[in-house]
This record gives sequence, structure tokens and C-alpha cells, in this order.
Amino acid sequence: MNALTDTTAATAANAAHAPSTIGVFDSGFGGLTVLRSLIERLPDARFAFLGDTARLPYGSKSQRTISRYAAESAQFLVREQGAEFLVIACNTASALALDAIKEAVPVPVLGVIEPGADAARAASQSGDVLVIATEATVHSRAYSAACQARGLRAIEKACPLLVPLVEEGWTDHPVTKQVIDVYLNELRAEAAARGMKPDTLVLGCTHYPLLRPLIERAVQPEITVIDSAESAARAAVDLCDTSAGSTGGAGETRTDETEIRCFATDSVEKFERLGSRFLHRPVGKVELVDLGG
Amino acid sequence: MNALTDTTAATAANAAHAPSTIGVFDSGFGGLTVLRSLIERLPDARFAFLGDTARLPYGSKSQRTISRYAAESAQFLVREQGAEFLVIACNTASALALDAIKEAVPVPVLGVIEPGADAARAASQSGDVLVIATEATVHSRAYSAACQARGLRAIEKACPLLVPLVEEGWTDHPVTKQVIDVYLNELRAEAAARGMKPDTLVLGCTHYPLLRPLIERAVQPEITVIDSAESAARAAVDLCDTSAGSTGGAGETRTDETEIRCFATDSVEKFERLGSRFLHRPVGKVELVDLGG
Repeated sequence: MNALTDTTAATAANAAHAPSTIGVFDSGFGGLTVLRSLIERLPDARFAFLGDTARLPYGSKSQRTISRYAAESAQFLVREQGAEFLVIACNTASALALDAIKEAVPVPVLGVIEPGADAARAASQSGDVLVIATEATVHSRAYSAACQARGLRAIEKACPLLVPLVEEGWTDHPVTKQVIDVYLNELRAEAAARGMKPDTLVLGCTHYPLLRPLIERAVQPEITVIDSAESAARAAVDLCDTSAGSTGGAGETRTDETEIRCFATDSVEKFERLGSRFLHRPVGKVELVDLGG
Repeated sequence: MNALTDTTAATAANAAHAPSTIGVFDSGFGGLTVLRSLIERLPDARFAFLGDTARLPYGSKSQRTISRYAAESAQFLVREQGAEFLVIACNTASALALDAIKEAVPVPVLGVIEPGADAARAASQSGDVLVIATEATVHSRAYSAACQARGLRAIEKACPLLVPLVEEGWTDHPVTKQVIDVYLNELRAEAAARGMKPDTLVLGCTHYPLLRPLIERAVQPEITVIDSAESAARAAVDLCDTSAGSTGGAGETRTDETEIRCFATDSVEKFERLGSRFLHRPVGKVELVDLGG
């Protein structure tokens, strides 16, 4: 796959591929943190982002329900928006529904779990890793399995208050700092009780990058913070490079001209209002789609 | 309507009505606080409770979506469970979807907003009322309208962190106390800026009764706390009395023998685990139903 806009001078070899559309999917708009990282790295691609806001949060639902919702959303991006590559910018869907999504669409699909575990492997010296995520992601034990496959020991903790704190805009509030301390102290106590010496913390939810400064203050300098959103964007660029032999146009290109279409299944107004916090620029007009659920 | 179990000696006059099934509906299991109050007052009725957990929270969704979900749920209780009377134990659905529900089913339907406003009218001397609720309930301005119709002035505030704090089990946590203080101080400052002298606070969400001790500590003695769950249960009993000329069997009757069937559209395990906190007794086996969403 290559990533070029119509206005970019394309080589004959690249022109056959360009412009590519990358579909990015989340249960809500937290995945805009992944889209932000993707745009920085692939400013010449077209992006179609779908937030399944009518049915969020996936984090407290069952695998059966999450798989159905995620497959329908992936099909919308591929069939209706022409996406040739999908990034599942939702930890819960990546943990519980990646196989269902791959079965539902005929394009390459990348989740956030494997890239997050790869980054943890690269960062950790001790081999002991902490993961914070939603209830459903933790319950799936997907991060533990991905870490174990890379020779790491991981313990995971569900932090259900962090998403609502981010959505309330309390990203630098004393209450949020206390909640983070409660969760991380419990997690470190559990690690110590198991004789582990964690040196890496994976942010296993796309809302958490907005809390990164508070979280880093709570754990540094002993622990390195890994953002799975950033790791997934980096992995997506690598995949694009491999398949098209291009760097995807990163560098000097102006990212404010990148073509982005945002869709939501509900609450378009809330998406438009809160989305810019995640994307670090206005999300523009969000289009409402009905997936029938 | 009358409320008698098969084992209760019924008069010939009552026997024609008994046993009645009361359907209780919520987007999640918060409405179990309403069911608890209903069981205390109508221990001889049969109850069918439906939590639409696959599609919660309604609080952040649009009116169109909420109306469709609530109507489907009401139809399940009436058509499949034989409910002859429905209590909408969900402030968001009562605020946004009561008309849609009444159109969808041929039985009497009672929401929680009007009873809450009635109780505020009875409690308030100053005529100035505070309401805390979810985002969608506040956005609907249903409490303001119901209060205004009773000659009260109301201001409402969305408190989106309180539901997740209750679900995390932090009902007596220092963090929750701080969050409540932040919300209530903002609300009281707004009331003061408008020259209001509020003496009544309505808990406009069925999760909030679990925070009642903390909330009362934050506002007493100047402000009386009204629980809309309790008010709705009282109004339901009045309606049952009116239609069947019976007290509904309250008093000495053992409520632990009340027949209750609980249904959820997802996350049965979470419902069973957390539900007892709301119901103040084990919820027993929760049955999974598929409403197709």
C-alpha cells in the first residue's frame, strides 16, 4: 500500500496504488489518538475514521457482542469507504475481536495489542511489564498472552475510572492524580508480591495517552511508559512501507492537508466537541451512520 | 392491578387480578434500586427486571437511539414476560423516551421524573431545587420542565463520574467524596449566582442512591435529599392501589419470597456480581436475552 494524495507528484510505480484509504476504527473517539499518530507518519494517506459511539463502551461488554459490533464497523469502512487497510484503534476490539474482523473483511487488519507488546519487549530490561486497560481488555488476557509470547511477564489491571475522567476533561485534575496513584499502587503491590521488578508500563487503552503526563509523573524514573496508540501507528507505517516500498510521505509534508473523514454511529455533537482533544486539531464535520444496532 | 403471589390467600375479588407482573426496566442494573423499593412496598407482586446492558450507558446517547432501545426493551417485558404495568427505572429513558415507550406497549407506564419532581415539590420550602443526573437526562431538561410545572425553579448538573465510581465500588472512598464536593460546589455556586436558595437536591439517576450517605453529608442540614428511585416506587404503589383497591400486601409480608426474574442483554456475570449492591440481596440467576441490537 502507498499513501499519496492527488496533489502529490507520484511516480508511475506508486500511482497504481495511490491514493490509499486507511480505515481506523474505535468503539468511541479515543482511537483518534492512534489516528493522530498515523497522520503524523502518513500525512499523504486518506483516512476514514469510524467511532461506534452508539454502542460504546465495548470495555464492559461480552466477546460475542464486541465481535459482532466490530465486524459490522470494519465492513462499513471497507465496503462503504473503500479502506484498503484497517487499523483497529481500540484495545478492547483488538483483544477480543481481531479474528472476527479479519474474517469479516478482505483487507489487512492491524490491532494495537501486538505493537504494544513489541514496544514493551524493546523497552524492558527486567522482562517484567505492567499493563493498564479497560475491564474487557484485561479480562481477555490478550496483553499477557502477547507479552508471554515475547518472553515477558505481564500483570494487567483494569482501571475503569480513567476513561470517564478523560471524557470529563479532568486530564490534569488532583482527583485524577489520586485515582492513578490508587490504581498504580495496587498494581505495583501485586507485582512486588509476585517477586516481579517491572520497568515498563503499557497504556492499553486509547484514552490513556491524554493522561500520559500524570501517569509518567507517577512512575518515573523507574518505569518507562509505552503508548500502544503510538506503537500501533509505527507498526502501520512499517506495514505500508513493506507492501509499497515507500516511506509513506512522512517528513516535511503538511499534515493539516491530510484528508480525513470521520463517522460516528451516534452522539456526533459530543464526538466533534471532545474529539479535538484526542486528535490535537478540530475533527471537523462528523458524519452520522446507522449500523443497525 | 393487584399484587398477590400464588401462595397468598386471595379474596375472590382479588383473585381475578392476581398475581400481577410488574415490569421494571433500566439501561443497566442501577434500576435495581427502584426494584428494591418496589419489593419493599409490593412484596406480593411478581417482578420482571430487564437491564439493557448490551447497549448501556443510555446517558451519553441521542434521543432517537434511546427511544428505539427503550421501546424494544419495554416490548420484551410486556410481550414475553406478561408485564401488566411498567416502571421505567432509568432517568435517561424516562426523560427522553417515555412517550416512545407508551406508544410501544398497551399497559400503564410510569417513569421516575414526575415522581421525583412531586417529592421535590412536597419537600421544598424555598421553591428552589437542585438536580444531579447523567448528561442525557440533564440535556433533556426533563427535570427542569417537571419542576417548573409544579411551581419550582430547578437547576440541573450532569455528574458523569458518579456512575463509574459506584460501579467501581468506591461508594465510601475519599476520591468519591471529593468528586461529589466538586460537582455540588459548582452547582451551589451556579444557584447562588442566579439568586436561588436551594433547599432540596434530587438524585436524578438510579445509581446515586448508593452514594446517598456521602451526598447527604455534603449538603445537610440545609438541603434535603430526594431519591427519585424511592419516589417512583411510592408512586407505583399508589397507582396499583388506585387500580385494584388494594394496599398491595405491604407490611408483615416476607419480601425474601417475592418472585423476581432478572434479564440482561449482555454481561450477565457483571450484573449478578454488582446487582446485589443495588438490590441489597443476591439477584440470583440473570437470564440473557437478545434484543437484536
